[in-house]
This record gives sequence, structure tokens and C-alpha cells, in this order.
Amino acid sequence: MAEWAARLAGVRAVVLDISGVLYDSGGEGGGVPIPGSREAVRKLKASGLKLRFCTNETQATREKFVEKLQRLGFDILVSEVTAPAPAACRILKERNLRPHLLVHDGLVPEFDQLDKGNPNCVVLGEAADNFSYQNLNEAFRVLIGLENPILLSLGRGRYYKETDGLKLDVGVYMKALEYACDIQAEVVGKPSKMFFQSALAEMGVEPQQAIMIGDDIVNDVGGAQQCGMRALQVRTGKYRPCDEQHPEVTPDGYVNNLAEAVDIILKQLDK
Amino acid sequence: MAEWAARLAGVRAVVLDISGVLYDSGGEGGGVPIPGSREAVRKLKASGLKLRFCTNETQATREKFVEKLQRLGFDILVSEVTAPAPAACRILKERNLRPHLLVHDGLVPEFDQLDKGNPNCVVLGEAADNFSYQNLNEAFRVLIGLENPILLSLGRGRYYKETDGLKLDVGVYMKALEYACDIQAEVVGKPSKMFFQSALAEMGVEPQQAIMIGDDIVNDVGGAQQCGMRALQVRTGKYRPCDEQHPEVTPDGYVNNLAEAVDIILKQLDK
Repeated sequence: MAEWAARLAGVRAVVLDISGVLYDSGGEGGGVPIPGSREAVRKLKASGLKLRFCTNETQATREKFVEKLQRLGFDILVSEVTAPAPAACRILKERNLRPHLLVHDGLVPEFDQLDKGNPNCVVLGEAADNFSYQNLNEAFRVLIGLENPILLSLGRGRYYKETDGLKLDVGVYMKALEYACDIQAEVVGKPSKMFFQSALAEMGVEPQQAIMIGDDIVNDVGGAQQCGMRALQVRTGKYRPCDEQHPEVTPDGYVNNLAEAVDIILKQLDK
Repeated sequence: MAEWAARLAGVRAVVLDISGVLYDSGGEGGGVPIPGSREAVRKLKASGLKLRFCTNETQATREKFVEKLQRLGFDILVSEVTAPAPAACRILKERNLRPHLLVHDGLVPEFDQLDKGNPNCVVLGEAADNFSYQNLNEAFRVLIGLENPILLSLGRGRYYKETDGLKLDVGVYMKALEYACDIQAEVVGKPSKMFFQSALAEMGVEPQQAIMIGDDIVNDVGGAQQCGMRALQVRTGKYRPCDEQHPEVTPDGYVNNLAEAVDIILKQLDK
């Protein structure tokens, strides 16, 4: 038995990363399910454990994203997903902020309900081709013109992999604007503690009652552990063998994929 | 008399920044001379002091840039200008590096003599519209594919001002790639010590024999002082009143413009 499986007492909830755990993104149809992951989600739902999906996906609205996953055969609902854009919307409303958006076109509808005139902050998402010199200059000018520049970044990832190669992620552009304006961004999304806490609150469990399963050693595993949760790294998605020698983060355990993780967890909790 | 003028003993050489000191860039004709600066350069040349121009300009080759300044009425020669691209070329040759270029189209000819096949480093300059998502991804993929990623950045400026507004400078994209690849760039250009030292070597003087005159509190004034030179800040170009409360850099003196600086220096050295 895996060593980590012996320390599962008290676990009542599972938090799943999506990209690289449930499916690999990119290509026709928007991606390919990772073998066994659809069945693993069904087993978790049948087990009585609480379940929540926690993603940094910001290329589409939560609705469109969930539709795609349903088409790929996953048993998943919009209400089960914690994502950066809806979290950012809550923050913007609470603080009376009017955002200038530099995000993917597909994400814009998430912010439909907000006043965007005379902006007093910038919201940065993974914007792909929208990360043009002109658009970055525009976002910069908004920030540098503010007495108290506020930059909300939907994640702090360095890069991700699509079928046609590695792509720079939102964190890279966050660092660019931080340096340009000599400010610190507020990160909404993994690995932010607040983001994991909101996923836990949705399930009504404490951090020590939850286990995170993700492919990203820093954003999934490190972030969840910082929040007091246990965390497993899957050897799928963006996992690389060198992650197992990461200088700062050591997962509670490794599994080959989600299916293996779920089988071990359910077997152990059955005892 | 200005306090700094009393401490000019031993000064034998003057180093001038160009943009914001000699002229303001942008608009028709490529810029407008700052009043009195053409005459000031002529006076310096007649004085017997050694003179060198030290610029971070990387939108055009040194030849094209000097041609523009000559058209604007400045007495300046290519051989009198220390600029990042020729310095980078020397470094690339010495270290057998084959660059992938992410620079302004106008700068590319500076690298004509170098082998650029199968690149083993990236050279980053102020690339303006060439800073597209696609081009940045390409530079990133070159770096992340190298066992020992080398990034040479032609300057580390945050932003600059053109007639149509503030623009992000090369340092912002340097920070972006540094974060993406978890590396440190090597800066060629001000405020790098090596860059000021090569300007001093061209004149055959020691740092304590030279005085820098620039508009950029960090890159001109701070960089020159780090190198052991004295440095004045002009109240032209990108100078802002808040520079006078800069937390880390205090110039040896302030002057309203280059003309005033040169008049005071020449009067004092005449004594």
C-alpha cells in the first residue's frame, strides 16, 4: 500500500484540478480525457465524499468550460467548479472596482455585470494572442495613471502545454506589469490561499479534511499544502520527473493518474 | 555657485546620455533638440574635455541613429557612441553564442555578421510591435529548450515616453522571460557596470575622472555612480520631480538642462 494512503484518516472531501488531471487540453474537440478519469469522477461522486473542481482555467467562461468537459463525457456541473473569474468578480464587486480587462475574448462575458467605465484597476487573465504590445501598453497606462494601482491576476502560472507547443501563461505578464509599475499583483486562483479556502467553504469542510489532486507541483500541490490540505501529484499533464526533486514542495504522495488515486483513497476509506 | 560644481577637480571626461538630454524622441523627423543642447555639445568638443555619448537606444543601428542626430544638427560621430547592440555583438562573438533575436526590425542589421542558426541564446531589445505573443513564445521556447539558457537584455528600462504616450520598455519583457524560465538575464547597456566601463575605456580615463549627465535617475545616474563616476541629473526628458526623493539614488547635482550643466562645468574647470 502507498505510504500516503495510511494517513487518510479524517478525509471527507476531494479537490480536483481539471487540466492535466481530468483531460489534456488542445487540439480538435478541445482536448482528450486522460484514461480512467471519467470513471474516477463517477466513483468519487458515488462514494459520499464531498467533491469540488478547482481550476485556473481562464480561456472561457465557467459555463463554456463545463459544457466542453460534459461533451468529453465528464459528470461535472458549473456549480461544482471553483474558477478565478467568478472569484475575481466577487472581489471587484465587494471593493467597488471597475476593471480594465486584459483577458481571453472567451472570458469577457464573466464580467458582463460589472461597470467597466473609467477603470480603477486591471484584471489580467491568460489572454493568448490578446497579449499584444498595444494591449499591454494600454493596461500599463491604466495602472500607471492610478494613484493606487491595483492589478488582479487570474493565476500566476509560468507556461502551459498545448498540442502545438509550450505557451507563456498569465504569470509571465503579471511579472511584466509588476515590474513596469513597481507594484505587487493580487493573485486570484491557485496557489492563492484565499482561492483554496473558497473551494473548502463551498464544501463546508476544514483544510485538514480535504485532499487535493493535481499535476502542478507549485500551484496545485504547494498551494493546497500552504492552505493546510493534503495534496497528491499525478504523473499526468504537466508533471515532469524533475518535479520529484522540487526544492520547495514535496507532495503527500505520488500517483500515476487520477484513477489510481481514487482507487486507493476509496479502498482505504472503506476500511 | 551650485554645490556640486565645487567638487569638479580632476574631471577630464564627460559622458552624455542622448534621449532626453540632447533631444526628445518621437514625432515627425524623429525628435526635437532640447534648447541649447546642440551648442552645449559644440562647447564640450571645443573645451578639450574627453566626450562620449552613452545610450540605451536599440530601435535602430548606431549608424542610422547618429544620422538622425546629425540631421537634427548635432556634432556627433558613430565612433563617439557607446550603444548596447555593438556591445552585445562583441560579447556574442567572444563567447561563441548564436543569438535568437527579439529586437526592433531597425536593429537587426547590427547582428548581420553573426551566425544565427541553431541558436544557443536569446538577445532581447526594445522591440515595440515585435513584442507579440507569438514572438515572445518563440523566444521562450528557445530558452526553455537550452540546457543553460542565456538571455542578453539590451537595457532594463521600465517604460519610455513617445509623442503618443508611455510605452513599455525592454526591461518589462526581460522580467517576463526571466520569470517564465526561472533565470537571470545579463543586461547589456545602462545601468550595467561593464557598459559604463567600456565607455570609459574608449576615452582612456578612470571612473573618478568622468562625469555622467543623464535624465534617468536609475539607469544614468545610479548606474554611473555604481561604476565610480560622478553623475548629474537634468530636469529634461523623463525627469520627474519625484526623482529628487528617490529612495536609492542621489545625484551629485541637478541642472535644468544640458546647456546649464556644460556652462557650469566649463566655467569651473577654467579656474
